[in-house]
Parts: sequence; structure tokens; C-alpha cells
Amino acid sequence: MAWFRTLTRLSTTVKSFPPPPIRTTPVATSLSYFTTVAADSAPPPHPTLSPSPTHCGSLKPTTSGEKARVVVLGSGWAGCRLMKGIDTTLYDVVCVSPRNHMVFTPLLASTCVGTLEFRSVAEPVGRIQPAISSEPGSYFFLSNCKGIDPHNHLVKCETVTDGPNAVEPWKFTIAYDKLVIALGAEATTFGIQGVKEHAIFLREVHQAQEIRRKLLLNLMLSDVPGTTEQEKSRLLHCVVVGGGPTGVEFSGELSDFIMRDVRQRHAHVKDYIRVTLIEANEILSSFDDRLRQYATKQLTKSGVRLVHGIVKDVEADKIVLDNGTEVPYGLLVWSTGVGPSPLVKSLDLPKAPGGRIGIDEWLRVPNVPDVFAIGDCSGFVESTGKPVLPALAQVAERQGKYLASLLNRIGKAGGGRANSGAEVDFGTPFVYKHLGSMATLGRYKALVDLRQSKEGKGISLAGFVSWFIWRSAYLTRVISWRNRFYVAVNWMTTMVFGRDISRI
Amino acid sequence: MAWFRTLTRLSTTVKSFPPPPIRTTPVATSLSYFTTVAADSAPPPHPTLSPSPTHCGSLKPTTSGEKARVVVLGSGWAGCRLMKGIDTTLYDVVCVSPRNHMVFTPLLASTCVGTLEFRSVAEPVGRIQPAISSEPGSYFFLSNCKGIDPHNHLVKCETVTDGPNAVEPWKFTIAYDKLVIALGAEATTFGIQGVKEHAIFLREVHQAQEIRRKLLLNLMLSDVPGTTEQEKSRLLHCVVVGGGPTGVEFSGELSDFIMRDVRQRHAHVKDYIRVTLIEANEILSSFDDRLRQYATKQLTKSGVRLVHGIVKDVEADKIVLDNGTEVPYGLLVWSTGVGPSPLVKSLDLPKAPGGRIGIDEWLRVPNVPDVFAIGDCSGFVESTGKPVLPALAQVAERQGKYLASLLNRIGKAGGGRANSGAEVDFGTPFVYKHLGSMATLGRYKALVDLRQSKEGKGISLAGFVSWFIWRSAYLTRVISWRNRFYVAVNWMTTMVFGRDISRI
Repeated sequence: MAWFRTLTRLSTTVKSFPPPPIRTTPVATSLSYFTTVAADSAPPPHPTLSPSPTHCGSLKPTTSGEKARVVVLGSGWAGCRLMKGIDTTLYDVVCVSPRNHMVFTPLLASTCVGTLEFRSVAEPVGRIQPAISSEPGSYFFLSNCKGIDPHNHLVKCETVTDGPNAVEPWKFTIAYDKLVIALGAEATTFGIQGVKEHAIFLREVHQAQEIRRKLLLNLMLSDVPGTTEQEKSRLLHCVVVGGGPTGVEFSGELSDFIMRDVRQRHAHVKDYIRVTLIEANEILSSFDDRLRQYATKQLTKSGVRLVHGIVKDVEADKIVLDNGTEVPYGLLVWSTGVGPSPLVKSLDLPKAPGGRIGIDEWLRVPNVPDVFAIGDCSGFVESTGKPVLPALAQVAERQGKYLASLLNRIGKAGGGRANSGAEVDFGTPFVYKHLGSMATLGRYKALVDLRQSKEGKGISLAGFVSWFIWRSAYLTRVISWRNRFYVAVNWMTTMVFGRDISRI
Repeated sequence: MAWFRTLTRLSTTVKSFPPPPIRTTPVATSLSYFTTVAADSAPPPHPTLSPSPTHCGSLKPTTSGEKARVVVLGSGWAGCRLMKGIDTTLYDVVCVSPRNHMVFTPLLASTCVGTLEFRSVAEPVGRIQPAISSEPGSYFFLSNCKGIDPHNHLVKCETVTDGPNAVEPWKFTIAYDKLVIALGAEATTFGIQGVKEHAIFLREVHQAQEIRRKLLLNLMLSDVPGTTEQEKSRLLHCVVVGGGPTGVEFSGELSDFIMRDVRQRHAHVKDYIRVTLIEANEILSSFDDRLRQYATKQLTKSGVRLVHGIVKDVEADKIVLDNGTEVPYGLLVWSTGVGPSPLVKSLDLPKAPGGRIGIDEWLRVPNVPDVFAIGDCSGFVESTGKPVLPALAQVAERQGKYLASLLNRIGKAGGGRANSGAEVDFGTPFVYKHLGSMATLGRYKALVDLRQSKEGKGISLAGFVSWFIWRSAYLTRVISWRNRFYVAVNWMTTMVFGRDISRI
């Protein structure tokens, strides 16, 4: 272990390292102070890189003097809504996640083409639950969960270390009183070769950034002297696989970007850029026929080519469909739904159909005391007789909200500690009521389906009105006022000035 | 060459690849259309990766039918100001740069801590000179210049290829009528070991992003259980080397960030974070004593420790000063001024003192027809009797502006083509008049020195008023209204909501 060698090399020079006082001195002498500092300010010697060769720290179990500790794994819709709702006078909150922000996923597609800025769709966890950054017993750890030990009420973690000169990750454990697993899901590849290597998913901000950089790079590469017509067509062929809301919204935004910005800012290559949306079944299958037809018409109108097909193989610059046709691409975005992550699969917990973590009506993992699971990583066990809920933001959000109040109820009843609270009356179980679906198609058009099910009764709209509803709805749902403000400003600026095309 | 193997493997399937028409179909049939597309839309076969195994394209010399071509190397202050001023009815403009935007460097330090967003300080070249994205003969190439052949009026270029699955860069040449070298300069390391590996410079947006990510990572790492006091102190020790405006402004912003945001959002570790500014001589040496004393006082007040010393060696987690003291750090920012880049050194052109490209009073490279140099990469040759100008944005900007009008003058006089225009009356030579210096110290304080030289007469201010002047001045100098608007919005939001701390 590299850091261990460094450590042993350096451990000879360990001394204390106190923060310096903030000195104030009169102006007249401040420069001489500057030089006196030079004289007496021998900075303290070098500390060790970690307390022990293995840096295996731990958050010990809470004592009677402390609040009970809720450990939340993940910072997505479910985890963040839970943390927002939890009563921090009853609990200390500890969040473990590889990102210190929640991504406002419904607006992520808009960031790829610069309609929105990346920061406008990212909400720091510390803003969602301020206690995490101020309360002595509450923490956020930029780390990955590596395993769970339910018998000892322990979570095993490893720090995230990226960027240049990344150090070895540090391992540590956290003792929990209550554990909430909200690890989310992972994009599915159906075991198709090359997807992970060559396609870009659209679930995280860094992926949206990668899509944007790739798109702008290809736009500029295709201008290079000596590039053939065919090569231009390949570079500027954006292929989206998966006709769900994400795929459709991204295609819509992309065609919007092409129609409005590329024609103007990349006039040389505007006739080469194209968007193809590949779907094995029907696009937006969760919406009714009328809305689907409308969506199809709108997308086609804005130049998105809809292709019915199944991807068989993915190579560096082309995909192969099951009927053997080869589709060359410059940018490949993969949005074919989600499945359980390797970690979730690996956890030795009861499972629901589809490999999700099994939960009962109160979102508890059956027979595992003090462990709950919410969001895309969880699903009702068969014994509940309930279906596994779809992997939707609104499901995750509702579960987070429900579990927050349940935990608060348990805490108030004095059941917050580990191995206690089982006797508390849990009240009414979690019931999911679908509030409807929305999808934007770009060009000031969107679909809004306010019916509880595809067959159910209710309002379903398409067009500008629903586009307006869609934007307003999301605008009011972005969590902080800061981001509401920024999203509004971004949308406004895009309308007035067009999208930003600087590749940073 | 990997891509060549791919190429030969694929070149069997080359067919034409026309962009598809945008079809519109009535709603009723659009779904059936959807499936018919599925049936008949066998996407075109795979094109070659490049026209020839070496993809050595070229922009041929301009013919009498075309406009004369000005090739600009670089997209900094000098190059962009030139492109902004050039008369595109006389010239086609071709810009070659590894970044498609200009960085508004005076505000870059503010982006590291989230006072400003990265996009607010980046101005796309296509906005500065719209002809580049619309005129048939004008181009922007996201490429690096690899060499110049003045005898044949040729520039050798190589495309930028980054990100995952980066392809081999493509080589191509550009024939110029007039060549403007505005390649800028490079941060100097004085040959000190480890600077390039471990320190972060502050000249590009991606470097500001790296600083921000590192700072936030360290803030979160230091929270991890088992981290010793000493390790916390190291992780949260931000060391800035170089007391010029950039170093001072960054230190000021950083202490601002610590005082205002870290205390609130990272309460657990607020007592460990410290900023040390190391300077071998005096900070802000270009300002007069009174302003320097004021700056020293302000920085000290806000907790920046000023250390007088010379860095001897840089290691992964500590720097060693000439007096042997070791300074452990978590973040090291290097801003000790600039020198000529390897490319500039390698160019076989007349040189000025300090290794810059030599220029005469009209910014021409002596004895090299049709080649000009401006900005940090250029300096007056000794024969002019003029001193090499400081590497300042205002020098670069003024030179760009001057050369634009000179080239327009030459063009109007019919001397725009290669090997012509020497007989044109060049008018008054370039004279630099220093308009003064500004530096912000954070906490609503700044220095403004409006005297032409350190000894000269004129206004010099310090405090809130000059902070206000500083902000207004830059606000009005950011090039596009979009960015002026965004900078104002960013500053406003930071005042109201504090800085954004999401690590994306």
C-alpha cells in the first residue's frame, strides 16, 4: 500500500499541529509583521498520513447520553427526502454517499445541451438537512458502502478518492441504531457487449457533463479539414437507446439544441447532425396511446428518427441491431431502465422479485431488526401480496417521506435505539398512490398524464399547456430556493441568449 | 495506430450516408409510421473513420475568389480581442485553440470557491466572433498548434482528443495569409521538483474545477472517523505559493469561503482549515507600500498566514522551504508568474529577452513576412529599445485591439494576401499605456491603483469603495451580456444564499 510506505517514511516527524491564531496588527507595522512572520513562522512539521497503518476508524455505537443514530446509505430522492423529514432532536443523521448532493433527475437531460446548468440540478445534502453539517453527532461521509453487518449493527465504508494523485481509500465502520438503505439502482445493459465501455448513461451529473463534452467535441471535430462526409455523419449521429421518459426527454432536448443552437453556432455541420431513438417496444409505454402518438409526431417533427429495434452489440463507433443492421454513432446514450446494483445484489438480505431488497408494508427489511430500505433498491416481498413499485422519483420520494415520519414516531415512543422499538405501534402501512407521469418533448411541448394507471380515468394533456405545467411543476419541486431561482434564470437565459456552448 | 486497424477492418462497409429528411405525418398514422420506420429504416452502413490512413487534411491557400485568411493561434485575451475587432468582410478568420472559449482570468479565482460559476467566466469564441461559426471560410478548430512553417505560410495542427475512448489525434495543416500568434504563456515552476505533479495552477477553468473538487474532497475526508488531528490539519491546510494578484485574490476568496461558508456548512472541521500564502519577496509588489500594507493587514485579519520563504521541493503532501522547514498541505495552488511555453520556445522565430517571440513596434515578427505575435507569448525585440511588457490581460487586450485595426487597415489597402501588404502605411506603432492595477482581497475589500507606474502620480484606493469599483469594472468588462448577467446573478446569489458546495 503506497500510502503506508509514505507513512512509515514520514512518521518520524510527528508533532502537534495547532491551528494558528488570527492575528491583527496595526497597518504601520503590518509589513514588518509580515517579515517577522517570515522569521518566526516555521510551519509545524509533517503529520502522519493516518492514525494507523490501516486507518480503520469507526463511529462507535451511541451511548445513553447521545441521540440515537440513523444511518442513511445514499443521497438520491429517497434518502434525501428521508433526511429532510427526520426529526434531528430525536436522531443524529449520518449519510454515506459517493456524492455530496442530490441530483434532480427529471431535469438532468436538460443539462446535457446547456438548457440548464449542472449546478442548478444538484442540491447539496447539507442544504437538504442542515443538521448534517452543524450537529456534533451528525455527519456526511463522501464514501461508498462496502457491506452491512446486521448482527452487529455495523456498516462498512470506504472513502471516495478520485482526481490526480488519489490516495488509497480509507476504510471505516459506522454503528447504527436504525439503518436506511437507499442505494438506488443501476442502469441495465442486459449483458450486451460494449455498453459499459462505449455508451454513456444519464443518471449522474458527471455523465451529463460527459455527454455535453462529447457532443461539443464531435461538433468541432467534424469541422476539421479532411474529414469525409461519412465521418461527419458518424460523428454527428447521436443515438439514444431506450424510449422511456429519460430517452425521450433527452432526444427532445437534443433536437431542440440542434434546431435552435447548432444551426446558428455550428453552421458548417448543421446538415449532418441527427438524432436516432432506438426502442425495442413502444416509446413512453407508460402513457396512453393518444399521448404516445402525440409524442411520436412531435419527435418526428423535430427531426428525431424513431427506430424499432433491439441492440445486439455495441462497438466503439457503431451498434449492431438484432436484424444485423449497423448503426454508426458519434454519441451513444443508454437509457433502458434500471436494475439492482452489484452491492445490492451482494447484500445478504431478504430479496423481492427482480433482486431488489425485500421490504414489508412498513418498509422494514423482514426479520432484520432496525434495517429499512426505500427507493429503487427496494421492493415489497411476495408475502405482502403487493407488486414491486416502479423505479420512479415519486415512489422514492413518497417512501422517504413516509419512513421519516415512521422513524420520528418510533423515536418519540422511545424506540430509537438499536434492537428496540419493535413493540411501538407503527401505524398505517405505506400505500403508494400514483400521481401521474410527465415527459417533455422539447420545443415547448410536453405530456402530462394525471391518471393513476394507464387504464384509469383522469386528465391527460399534451402540448404547450402541459409543457408549461411540466416546467412549473418541476420549478416548484426543486428543493432549495437557490436552485428554483437558478433553474428559472437558466430557462430565461436560454430563451433570451440561447444555450451556452463553451466546452469546460 | 489503433484507429487505422479499426479503419481497415471497417472500410469494407463504406456507403453514402445522407442526412434523413424531417418527415411529418398525421397523428392518426404516426404510430404506424413509427413501425414502418422500424421496417424500412435500415440505418446506413458504417463509414470509414477518416478519409485516409493518416487523416492529413488541410486548408489550402486562399484563391483570388476568396477572402484573405487570418489564422489566430490561441483563444486568450489577445487572440479573442483581435478576433472581435477584425473586419470579417475583409478576412476569413480561422482560430486554433485547445479550448473553444476565452477564460475571463481576473474572475477565475472566484470560481474555485463557488462565488462565481465556471460558465460565468468562460466566453465561447463563437460568441466573440460570430463569423467563425457562420461564415463559410471561417472556422474554429479545437486543436493544438504543433509547428509553423513560415516559408510555406503553413500551420501544423493536431486535434484535441480527451475523455474516455479518446481516438488518435488527427493531423492537419492550415495555409495562412496572415498569422497571429497569441499562444499565451505557461506557469513557471523554476524547475522545482514535484510542482507539476502535486501543485495546481490557476490559469484554466479545468484547474479551477480541480481546486474546487480537491478542497471539497479534503473537507469531507477530514470528517472521516479515525482521522487524526494532525491529518485533519494537513488535509485542510491550503497553501498558495506566489503573492501576485492571482495568489492574493485566491487567498482572499478562500478565507472568505472559510469565514462565511465552511464555518456554517462544515462546522465539524472549521477550526482546522487554514490558508498560508508563501511569497519569496513582497506580496503585490506592483502596488505601492500603502496598498501592500493594507492588503497584508486585510489578509492577516481574515486568517491568511503570510510566510516569507522560497520553496525548494514539493512532495505529495508537504513542501520544503529553503530554510528546511516542512509545510504539510492538503491543497497546493501555484501562482508564481508565467514564462514561455515549450511550443513557443521550440518555434524557430526571432526571440525577445526572456524567450518570448520577438516583435517590432507594429507587433510584427521581424523578418518573417505576414507573422504577428501578441499577448504573453510576445515581447519587443531589443532593437526596438522598448522593454518587454508585463504578462497582463490589459496588455494582451490592447495589443489584440491594435492588431485588429492594423490588419483591417492592411486589408482595406489590398494587402491582405500572403506576401503582400508590406508596402502599406502601417500608421502609428503600438504604444502601451498602463491603466493601473486592481486586486480583490475578499470580504468586500480590494485595491485599485490607477497610476501608470509604481512611482507615478495618480489615484490609489483601498477598501470597500475600491472593491465596488473592482466588481463594477469587471462586470462591465465581461464580454457578453449573457455573462455580465450571470456574473451579477452569481454574486447576488452568493450574497443571499451563500456559496454552492455540491461537488460535481
